[in-house]
Amino acid sequence: MSKGTINVSVENIFPLIKKFLYSDHEIFLRELVSNATDATLKLKHLTNIGEAKVDYGSPKIEVKIDKDKKQLHIIDQGIGMTREEVEKYINEIAFSGAEEFIEKYKDKNGDDAGIIGHFGLGFYSAFMVAKKVEIITKSYKDEPAVHWTCDGSPNYIIEKSSKEDRGTEIILHIAEDSTEFLEESRIRELLVKYNKFMPIPIKFGTKTETLSKPEGAKEEEPAPTKEVDNIINNPDPAWTKAPTELKDEDYKSFYRELYPMQFEEPLFNIHLNVDYPFNLTGILYFPKMTNDMNIQKDKIQLYQNQVFVTDNVEGIVPEFLTMLRGVIDSPDIPLNVSRSYLQADGAVKKISSYITRKVADKLKSLFNSDREDFEKKWNDIKMVIEYGMLTEEKFYEKAQDFALYPTVDGTYFTFSELKEKIKDLQTDKDDKLVVLYASNTETQHSYIEAAKAKGYEVLLLDSPIVSHLLQKIESKEEKISFVRVDSDPIDSLIKKEEEAVSKLNDDEKETLSGFLKETIPSEKFTVKLEAMDSNANPFIITEPEFMRRMKEMQQTGGGMFGMGAMPEIYNLVVNTNHPLVSEILNTKTKKKKERLVLQALDLAKLSKNLLKGEEMTRFIKRSYEMIK
Amino acid sequence: MSKGTINVSVENIFPLIKKFLYSDHEIFLRELVSNATDATLKLKHLTNIGEAKVDYGSPKIEVKIDKDKKQLHIIDQGIGMTREEVEKYINEIAFSGAEEFIEKYKDKNGDDAGIIGHFGLGFYSAFMVAKKVEIITKSYKDEPAVHWTCDGSPNYIIEKSSKEDRGTEIILHIAEDSTEFLEESRIRELLVKYNKFMPIPIKFGTKTETLSKPEGAKEEEPAPTKEVDNIINNPDPAWTKAPTELKDEDYKSFYRELYPMQFEEPLFNIHLNVDYPFNLTGILYFPKMTNDMNIQKDKIQLYQNQVFVTDNVEGIVPEFLTMLRGVIDSPDIPLNVSRSYLQADGAVKKISSYITRKVADKLKSLFNSDREDFEKKWNDIKMVIEYGMLTEEKFYEKAQDFALYPTVDGTYFTFSELKEKIKDLQTDKDDKLVVLYASNTETQHSYIEAAKAKGYEVLLLDSPIVSHLLQKIESKEEKISFVRVDSDPIDSLIKKEEEAVSKLNDDEKETLSGFLKETIPSEKFTVKLEAMDSNANPFIITEPEFMRRMKEMQQTGGGMFGMGAMPEIYNLVVNTNHPLVSEILNTKTKKKKERLVLQALDLAKLSKNLLKGEEMTRFIKRSYEMIK
Repeated sequence: MSKGTINVSVENIFPLIKKFLYSDHEIFLRELVSNATDATLKLKHLTNIGEAKVDYGSPKIEVKIDKDKKQLHIIDQGIGMTREEVEKYINEIAFSGAEEFIEKYKDKNGDDAGIIGHFGLGFYSAFMVAKKVEIITKSYKDEPAVHWTCDGSPNYIIEKSSKEDRGTEIILHIAEDSTEFLEESRIRELLVKYNKFMPIPIKFGTKTETLSKPEGAKEEEPAPTKEVDNIINNPDPAWTKAPTELKDEDYKSFYRELYPMQFEEPLFNIHLNVDYPFNLTGILYFPKMTNDMNIQKDKIQLYQNQVFVTDNVEGIVPEFLTMLRGVIDSPDIPLNVSRSYLQADGAVKKISSYITRKVADKLKSLFNSDREDFEKKWNDIKMVIEYGMLTEEKFYEKAQDFALYPTVDGTYFTFSELKEKIKDLQTDKDDKLVVLYASNTETQHSYIEAAKAKGYEVLLLDSPIVSHLLQKIESKEEKISFVRVDSDPIDSLIKKEEEAVSKLNDDEKETLSGFLKETIPSEKFTVKLEAMDSNANPFIITEPEFMRRMKEMQQTGGGMFGMGAMPEIYNLVVNTNHPLVSEILNTKTKKKKERLVLQALDLAKLSKNLLKGEEMTRFIKRSYEMIK
Repeated sequence: MSKGTINVSVENIFPLIKKFLYSDHEIFLRELVSNATDATLKLKHLTNIGEAKVDYGSPKIEVKIDKDKKQLHIIDQGIGMTREEVEKYINEIAFSGAEEFIEKYKDKNGDDAGIIGHFGLGFYSAFMVAKKVEIITKSYKDEPAVHWTCDGSPNYIIEKSSKEDRGTEIILHIAEDSTEFLEESRIRELLVKYNKFMPIPIKFGTKTETLSKPEGAKEEEPAPTKEVDNIINNPDPAWTKAPTELKDEDYKSFYRELYPMQFEEPLFNIHLNVDYPFNLTGILYFPKMTNDMNIQKDKIQLYQNQVFVTDNVEGIVPEFLTMLRGVIDSPDIPLNVSRSYLQADGAVKKISSYITRKVADKLKSLFNSDREDFEKKWNDIKMVIEYGMLTEEKFYEKAQDFALYPTVDGTYFTFSELKEKIKDLQTDKDDKLVVLYASNTETQHSYIEAAKAKGYEVLLLDSPIVSHLLQKIESKEEKISFVRVDSDPIDSLIKKEEEAVSKLNDDEKETLSGFLKETIPSEKFTVKLEAMDSNANPFIITEPEFMRRMKEMQQTGGGMFGMGAMPEIYNLVVNTNHPLVSEILNTKTKKKKERLVLQALDLAKLSKNLLKGEEMTRFIKRSYEMIK
């Protein structure tokens, strides 16, 4: 047996970095700007605690392209490095400088002064895009500046530099296959993507500002202008401030900053701010949403100490909230683990349920403070709330306080208000409360009208997941059932003790029934005779609730397997008390009789949105004839 | 100035690997199985060229979980390593063993004998999930076996081992935060995801096979069984074979292998096979597709020498072909570059246009060899073809040979056949060829019937991008315009020299016009009187082609900005030669007159699918009254 030490072969370390460090080369800029920010924040910390006896000033970071020389410069005014430090931090790859620094200087509370320690090794990612890299650096300590050069082989050159001002300049000699990173538009895009909210101002070029004219200037004289630094980032984004510092307009303007291409304003926001048992800040926004199931997710951005990490928050935020927008910033979310590990991680679970609770609390307080406004927004937020009720048990419970059930006429009930409102009229003979609803006020119009004529309330429930939600509510509540208005004739929707009397006797019924069966295709309609109000339509097509709901549930995932493929079966309910039905019975010519039945059937189909194509053309033709 | 060599600090190399090597830890298994495959293929090569005087046999790779000991084993029967080689390849990180091997043994043709040289460094990814790693290995050379152990620090122990059979066993002592990799289901999932088609059989557990009963066995006696190796991969996937070796059924069964959850069979396949100027093999399948714009992309899998790389082929395959399914295997696609670089890369451009050409050629040959079958499949493949015609100029040209234009009656024309067929009847007075089409045979039924009654051909064009495509065809072809059947009354769709005579004189027209304007809302309908055939409907609603098409184009991306928000404007064309129109004119009571107009207007709305909600309920009520 023998022992040894693994030797990292330096000849091949650059290819290794180039191949494996990041799958996406553009990351190098995030890494270098992060390092520059890091160096600046370190200096700030050292001056704060009196360790560095220099003037911190208002440092910024500059990113500069020199297209002719094929160079990209990243310049900071931070802590800088002495020759000794270059030897230590740069020449010894994988020596994590940030960690050592934090260890040494962290104060008693364990506060790390906002220093970004996560990307410490990123410097070498420069070699993913550069064939040669230079570092020119001068420390805040009174030592000469240093110039380090490396051409991508493990050999470097180190010499003195004449640099006089404090800080570090990195010069990348961009490689042939990476010239995209010499384009202003590309660099701007990357700075905006990754560094938009980093805590030190980042200068990228200059812009022209118009000054006010000097007094007494002539009309035709142009206003004077001056060149000023073009700062590409916002070092103090809204989420880093206390909620008390921010007005409604500040939240809205931060939303525009996050989503400049988004013209609609958010409905409201939720400011997240917690430091125990985990650190998390952020602002979530409810955008206006449609009923589209394929809603755009992946709009929430995840940051760590103001550095953009990803816009995939799957596993961190409960799924129903991924429909929201905004920012989450937390150093406590482990990033270099698999998604499945993330979902099982205790800290992440706590974060997820904290966010859920905050969202529920905010919704409740909005509901309580201005119900009218909440009702106005309901249609835009219901997708999130209903999906949350369906998938998160805790949210379902909390939502009892603010989830709304709108009627077709625009009245909004909470579920307990609804029960109170309908209990007298809509309790059936088995003591069950029957909640009527429609999914479309246009195609179900005549059914809705019939229910309203009885004094019933009809809800408008039109989300694509509504069948799943109703199924859940029915299983949670006792003696409640939801029935769509077109699933039965009005008197059968909510069965009462009364019995209606038929104008037709049994013989007449049998004759009618026989004739109808000859004329109406039995594979599409089950004909039923019922004694109804003579003002009700003569023919009514209905579709039983259970079958329809199961089919719908299967279409949106769930329900009973195989139901989706079942044919649509309708009932054709014939109102034996309607005068037209008597007329059908009494008309002598078979042809005339048939024409009456077909016209009534087509009109019933129109009520249920079932008359299409050739049948429609035939119906229109017949109708013109019947006018003539 | 001084020179030096960058030193990779070994103390921190393991954290580096753990953090940066791959963002997804599960990759370790792909890497280790790739190494095992590599070691086996190397032995094969050496025995083939006579360098290794051993029996190659039928080696396999075994993956084994020992849950009690929290170990994962990867065992191969490949080339093995001597102590010297362990020192060289394992202890010197980043020494790319595979490259050296290829350099030494590649034959004159530059053929690398299928050796996977791309993941050479992957061994250390084991430390992403293991706290301790052991290697027990015996070389094919007559040297003692070696046992290497490393606990994740840079220190290792190396000793002799009693292993007698050739090959390498890797033992991972799984870390606490990675216990998911001790679950059989998780390992199976990963082996299937990454190693399903690797060229050496991979054993994972055993399964029970039922043997046939021995002769004379009793009825009630159970058939004997035996435990056999459970091989998880297919080492010879279809795409590695020559097209001549494969039957239709082989392609279908390979499709089922690729997409086991996919029950529908593919329509046809395209076998890709090229070795100059780049290496590429693969099989693409046309699946059945619907008209859904949000079609599932990202179904094509990219391999390199039978190792799964990704299912995101964006940039490699032209966008319209990402709707297809299948496999592409090429060692020539650069993987560690940004997508924007990939799209600009010459080799990748060639690959992309090669694939486009192969797809077009295949479609042409399918069309030529069995047109009837091609027509049957048209509806399922048109999305890809039409989208390709719209976005790729070369494909547009090639598609002239096989792109089909179906009529509402199910006749399929190529564009040149169509022109020939309709030129006599459908050329208008300005010598322009007018192609009539419908987008929905149900809602446009009565308009289609009217056009067919004139002897016109009506195409059925119902893809969501069809307005864009028509716009393109009109700009490419001379004197051709496409007009939807409901954009004008039938006689105006294709304007001929004839003038129809009106039954009404000018006074009557003025009276009628005045009354109609009182009754019909002018913000919705522009009323026009036209003398048409007395058999045509009395009222016809039309929607001008240009406006409608621009609105549609904007909805699917493109068109004229702002058109999407324009209100829908319809023409109401009144047929002055229809008897009902005379009746309206001659009816004395205003109320009766109004009822006739409203009924005719509602019937026209029904033809154009415009009668909804309350208007529909009112119409149904009025219709019942008019029956009585």
